Amino acid sequence: MKKHQSFIMATLFVFLLISGCAERTEDMGTEPYGVDEASPELSGSGNDVLYQVSTLDALLQSVYDGILPIEELETHGDFGIGTFDGLEGEMLALDGDYYQIKTDGLAYPVSGEMATPFATVTFFETDESFELEGPMNLTELEVFLDSKLPSENLFYAVHVDGTFSYLKARSVPKQEKPYPRLVDVVSTQAVFEFENIGGTLVGFRAPDYVKGVNVPGYHIHFITRDRRAGGHVLDFKLEDGDATVDITRAFFMELPTSGDFYEVELGQDLQSDLERVEK
Amino acid sequence: MKKHQSFIMATLFVFLLISGCAERTEDMGTEPYGVDEASPELSGSGNDVLYQVSTLDALLQSVYDGILPIEELETHGDFGIGTFDGLEGEMLALDGDYYQIKTDGLAYPVSGEMATPFATVTFFETDESFELEGPMNLTELEVFLDSKLPSENLFYAVHVDGTFSYLKARSVPKQEKPYPRLVDVVSTQAVFEFENIGGTLVGFRAPDYVKGVNVPGYHIHFITRDRRAGGHVLDFKLEDGDATVDITRAFFMELPTSGDFYEVELGQDLQSDLERVEK
Repeated sequence: MKKHQSFIMATLFVFLLISGCAERTEDMGTEPYGVDEASPELSGSGNDVLYQVSTLDALLQSVYDGILPIEELETHGDFGIGTFDGLEGEMLALDGDYYQIKTDGLAYPVSGEMATPFATVTFFETDESFELEGPMNLTELEVFLDSKLPSENLFYAVHVDGTFSYLKARSVPKQEKPYPRLVDVVSTQAVFEFENIGGTLVGFRAPDYVKGVNVPGYHIHFITRDRRAGGHVLDFKLEDGDATVDITRAFFMELPTSGDFYEVELGQDLQSDLERVEK
Repeated sequence: MKKHQSFIMATLFVFLLISGCAERTEDMGTEPYGVDEASPELSGSGNDVLYQVSTLDALLQSVYDGILPIEELETHGDFGIGTFDGLEGEMLALDGDYYQIKTDGLAYPVSGEMATPFATVTFFETDESFELEGPMNLTELEVFLDSKLPSENLFYAVHVDGTFSYLKARSVPKQEKPYPRLVDVVSTQAVFEFENIGGTLVGFRAPDYVKGVNVPGYHIHFITRDRRAGGHVLDFKLEDGDATVDITRAFFMELPTSGDFYEVELGQDLQSDLERVEK
């Protein structure tokens, strides 16, 4: 089921840029990504709200038009993942900075006017911390975290600073209309392989009962320690790291008020699509 | 599959109270139900937020302990449905007044200290209005509304003022621990039959993709025009009425932070349970 096109050239290009070109990194540090506005206070939940734009099944069914500007998304979280208008790359937000990881594997700055068709963000506040002793692959990390979390029925934001002897990530190219299905888009994905790299995993664990709305279980993106490359995580070998988890007890979903979302057929079970898309 | 115990005595009692006893009604009008606090402004959605406590599948799996006080629920909506601690009756909120319909079919005032294990509320603002020409049963109303609504992928609050030549409603008795499953509780439900009655249907239409989280399709409660009786609607024959619909483009779900919710198994498909419980 796993169907990747490993672009060796892209990988090499990523390594060259990580090791060499410092200029863009400095620019990125000064981009005005920051979150100035406080998250709305909701019924005592405070910042423990997971905010989501649209639904996963709408994305699986080709609803790729950006419908929420990033400047608005930023008011709901400083941490999260998603994608961009036309499915152009992987989104990652960390410490209030938003990044777009394109098919060259590089993390580009994001402007407030760019829009997202699907994203999940929160204001990250550490509730639990765990030291990670490797080697540990993606599945082993998930099993470890599941053994530590208080309930499988809540939402969690997951943040791991680690060193990885190996990490495989992907990104997807911008799509043109008529949009193909996501399961077909991933057959053209670009895959990047990192070795001996430090960086941060950014993602969420969602409960099974939101199947159709979000990814049940873990959905994790990655960015290198220097914030210059990354992608949607396919697998890794983590050597050591620190995991912090934010237990988010409220879930807020905002639906598109126009466009393809109104007409798309969302009654189907798309779990087999999802497995091909995520792994 | 439909298993009701029609308590004729309860029905008669309801009719007697509707026609006779005016004293309680006046008391109800002076109860401090009102919503003083504004709904949180969320990303331009304003009041178009459907607020939910817990999940439907948790309720189906016997998570009946009240976890949110009504005084807090009221800050999220003036219109909605739900239940109470221990599954004690049907909740209905209309024009900012909250009611508890017990197994005698009567609508009792609700105090702020009472708590709910599951409820869905919003601040009702009319987006669409439709004149209803009967006779029309519950299914026919649903088909009619579905033909008028802009998308099956959004959430809608549905408000119908009507006259009914017939209406059948139910309520459920308070449960004691160890809690039985909801599908077993409804076998002990009390069913009320109204004839030639005016009143209001209060409910929601939720999209299919929130299966497990809320009731896919329509979930409707009823209260008489004098606000003294009602229940969870099983069927009716509406003669004429006015439907107003609030399109709610955002969904906010708050999860229990303690109790049975943490441990309950929510990965199962409970649609067959749901059909027995709702109809």
